[in-house]
Amino acid sequence: MPLRLAELAVRFGCELQGDPDALVERVATLQDATPGSLAFLSNSRYRRYLAATRATAVVLEATAAAECPVAALVARNPYATYARIAQLLYPARSVRPGRHPSAVVEDGAVVDPSAWIGAQAFVANGAVVGPGAFVGPGSILLEGASVGKDTQLVARVTLCEGVRIGRRCMLHPGVVVGADGFGQAPDAGHYVKVPQVGSVAIGDDVEVGANTTIDRGAIGDTVIGDGVKIDNQVQIGHNVHVGEHTVIAGCAGISGSAVIGRRCMIGGMVGIVGHLEICDDVALTGRTMVSSSIRQPGVYSSALSADEARRFRRNAARFQKLDELARRVRRLEGAAEAQGEDDE
Amino acid sequence: MPLRLAELAVRFGCELQGDPDALVERVATLQDATPGSLAFLSNSRYRRYLAATRATAVVLEATAAAECPVAALVARNPYATYARIAQLLYPARSVRPGRHPSAVVEDGAVVDPSAWIGAQAFVANGAVVGPGAFVGPGSILLEGASVGKDTQLVARVTLCEGVRIGRRCMLHPGVVVGADGFGQAPDAGHYVKVPQVGSVAIGDDVEVGANTTIDRGAIGDTVIGDGVKIDNQVQIGHNVHVGEHTVIAGCAGISGSAVIGRRCMIGGMVGIVGHLEICDDVALTGRTMVSSSIRQPGVYSSALSADEARRFRRNAARFQKLDELARRVRRLEGAAEAQGEDDE
Amino acid sequence: MPLRLAELAVRFGCELQGDPDALVERVATLQDATPGSLAFLSNSRYRRYLAATRATAVVLEATAAAECPVAALVARNPYATYARIAQLLYPARSVRPGRHPSAVVEDGAVVDPSAWIGAQAFVANGAVVGPGAFVGPGSILLEGASVGKDTQLVARVTLCEGVRIGRRCMLHPGVVVGADGFGQAPDAGHYVKVPQVGSVAIGDDVEVGANTTIDRGAIGDTVIGDGVKIDNQVQIGHNVHVGEHTVIAGCAGISGSAVIGRRCMIGGMVGIVGHLEICDDVALTGRTMVSSSIRQPGVYSSALSADEARRFRRNAARFQKLDELARRVRRLEGAAEAQGEDDE
Repeated sequence: MPLRLAELAVRFGCELQGDPDALVERVATLQDATPGSLAFLSNSRYRRYLAATRATAVVLEATAAAECPVAALVARNPYATYARIAQLLYPARSVRPGRHPSAVVEDGAVVDPSAWIGAQAFVANGAVVGPGAFVGPGSILLEGASVGKDTQLVARVTLCEGVRIGRRCMLHPGVVVGADGFGQAPDAGHYVKVPQVGSVAIGDDVEVGANTTIDRGAIGDTVIGDGVKIDNQVQIGHNVHVGEHTVIAGCAGISGSAVIGRRCMIGGMVGIVGHLEICDDVALTGRTMVSSSIRQPGVYSSALSADEARRFRRNAARFQKLDELARRVRRLEGAAEAQGEDDE
Repeated sequence: MPLRLAELAVRFGCELQGDPDALVERVATLQDATPGSLAFLSNSRYRRYLAATRATAVVLEATAAAECPVAALVARNPYATYARIAQLLYPARSVRPGRHPSAVVEDGAVVDPSAWIGAQAFVANGAVVGPGAFVGPGSILLEGASVGKDTQLVARVTLCEGVRIGRRCMLHPGVVVGADGFGQAPDAGHYVKVPQVGSVAIGDDVEVGANTTIDRGAIGDTVIGDGVKIDNQVQIGHNVHVGEHTVIAGCAGISGSAVIGRRCMIGGMVGIVGHLEICDDVALTGRTMVSSSIRQPGVYSSALSADEARRFRRNAARFQKLDELARRVRRLEGAAEAQGEDDE
Repeated sequence: MPLRLAELAVRFGCELQGDPDALVERVATLQDATPGSLAFLSNSRYRRYLAATRATAVVLEATAAAECPVAALVARNPYATYARIAQLLYPARSVRPGRHPSAVVEDGAVVDPSAWIGAQAFVANGAVVGPGAFVGPGSILLEGASVGKDTQLVARVTLCEGVRIGRRCMLHPGVVVGADGFGQAPDAGHYVKVPQVGSVAIGDDVEVGANTTIDRGAIGDTVIGDGVKIDNQVQIGHNVHVGEHTVIAGCAGISGSAVIGRRCMIGGMVGIVGHLEICDDVALTGRTMVSSSIRQPGVYSSALSADEARRFRRNAARFQKLDELARRVRRLEGAAEAQGEDDE
């Protein structure tokens, strides 16, 4: 469905530079765009591609508009504006009501007639599937799991007993919500399993990436707030609370009972130790390791970056004696002070 | 099923402080407990909640008993005692014998009549499912895979050809046991696949967390000892041996042919390089990277912790010249010694 | 099927030392071999097992041949030669044409008659399964996904809409190809989903390990070149390009829009930040963190190694003041220079 630039400008509050009647019908990158495409410029790294773009229009900031060789939709937040236009051009999968003949829905499950249950899926007794929800192929809802209105389980999602997923969520293939948390009580050289009797409560508008795992609480619930966005292969331990509108990038791990604030940005491969708190508005750069609570908003880091291996090894060897080096510097300072006093 | 405190005290060898006839019927945290609940105090971080708890009883150490405002079950190991009581209050899923009509069990599979094969599961020829075992929905047992007595595959577990799982194990959703190890022989700029002809042998009483992967051996077997507890998203490479009663926290990775001792504690996101040995009773704190064998029991670390990003960057920049800094300190020491000699 | 050493020597261009008529019928490690076994020696760590081996024959380099107590197949690249012989001794699973009665294949899917669709699998409309391909049990191909000739989806692989897998690939259980990339545009304290309208294109002869995820492109495609080998639990973000014959070890993560060269070796748990480039022939040792482009072939590192925890903590505390320490050294140097000038 082609869209007129004039309509887009009005709808999304952009200033339009160029032909209001021009039509876009798909998206493209600046460098690969052909006529009919809408592109966007948000990351300055890609500005070098602007001058030669063949897109019909580009969503960009005012500061870049003068350089734009084609029509421009000037927006305060080009990336978000682009996202909204792309949602118009590529509507989400529509949900056909009913169930695939190969799906197994136990008699005690409550499935809204407007929901879809896909091929090879299994919905156990006591599970609840809300209006307009999409349970993709191979998905499994164990006893009492529930899925809110318009939520999509893309495919092969597993929801364990009693977990609750809000409205308008999207869970990608391989996600497991509500497996037992890692509760093992050491006792005389072996471990006693601690029953994990809590559940998981996921709010509205949450997205969860492929193969991410969110464990059920040991006693209370693991809680994921509204609007949280989680990437692939993230691990969230039991009793964790994640505040609203926090984003968590791929391969991050949050240990049990950690409490994460609102609007945090947790980078890829970040690790967060259990039983600590991170306040609102904290950004953790990629692979940061958090081992004590963070009580001030701000940006935090802990990962060294790649260096030529031989040089890295030499520096790492020095690191292993860094405390001694610091003591040696202290001794030199002491000697220098004594010398200074002698000189006086 | 409510339990009397007197009965619990006798059964688990606790000293009882308070009404022996009081009943508990569920568990709760100290802070959220209401009458009828059993709570516990093990991590001193939560001691501040003890004075105001509304639990009917608390499992705790002798040193905390005087502060307890309600009945107390005084135990040497409160967490393990709590775990055992919770197992009574929340019995494990019981296994109904039989198979779901949607399950596919090939004729050559051997399934004990007391086992359960769940919806949408697949059990191939030559697979063996022991007495009382639970093969949850969507699980797959390829040719010759075997599952011991009373073992539970919660849901969507994949057991590849010929892997052997012991008794009383619990494998959580998304676990893959016995996929090919990563054997790729470099040759003239490309790679030749090395057939992975070994298998996986998992002992008794092993728990494996959601989306964890344990690869089959290249030639011999990958071996997981009795009582090993593995959290979510752990990766265990081919030919690894993990000794009995070792615990491995989430997102850890153990490369091929590493040999891990007994009773080790491997923290979250720990990485262990291949072809090395770690002796018994080693603890690795979160995100430690082990790149050579460890032959002494003890605690080991290698991960820097989060710091304010700007300060971290300055320090990291200095790290990249740490070897040079150490040389400069050595020169200063040389000069100071020379100076000292001059002064004499 | 036992194989004659003479035949192997001719076929793989080895020099044979020992009885040309001896037969091998299985593989074994040097230490566990019994008569009838073929072993190999490639990693010098295992040379100590050579003298006592009971293998019928050992594949090894010329430099080790004199020490070999049994027949030897002397090869320039013993590991690759071993791999090829093992492929003869253990032929890949053969593909039976047809489909399991429990498989669901939608009418609009195109499945070559020589392909196999396994139990509980689902192949949607528009999906294409090429000649000789193996779609293992529980695998899911969403609309328009395609699998090339002789490719194997071992079990429970998920291919999302429109992704394209080349020929002779092998995808292990739990792999997810083509889930949405992590595109979230921040806007006024919450996030707007950026439709992920690209796809994934995987070349020929690619292997993908268990529970690995490869996201679809935001606009263009995520591209995995021919001959790439990927281990378990690797995360590859949207729009990433991986050059031919690159290998990626377990638990590595590559963020969106990174471009990786050819013949790279990416170690376990390596993290690569988005929107950067790594040239051909780069090796990254385990757990390296790459946060800026690498333009020179070579070996790169960034991970500190395990140390005794108490010593590590002392050194890490010094690291947090490393910038200050460097300034103190600079001051000492300044003072020493001034002293030197005074002395002149």
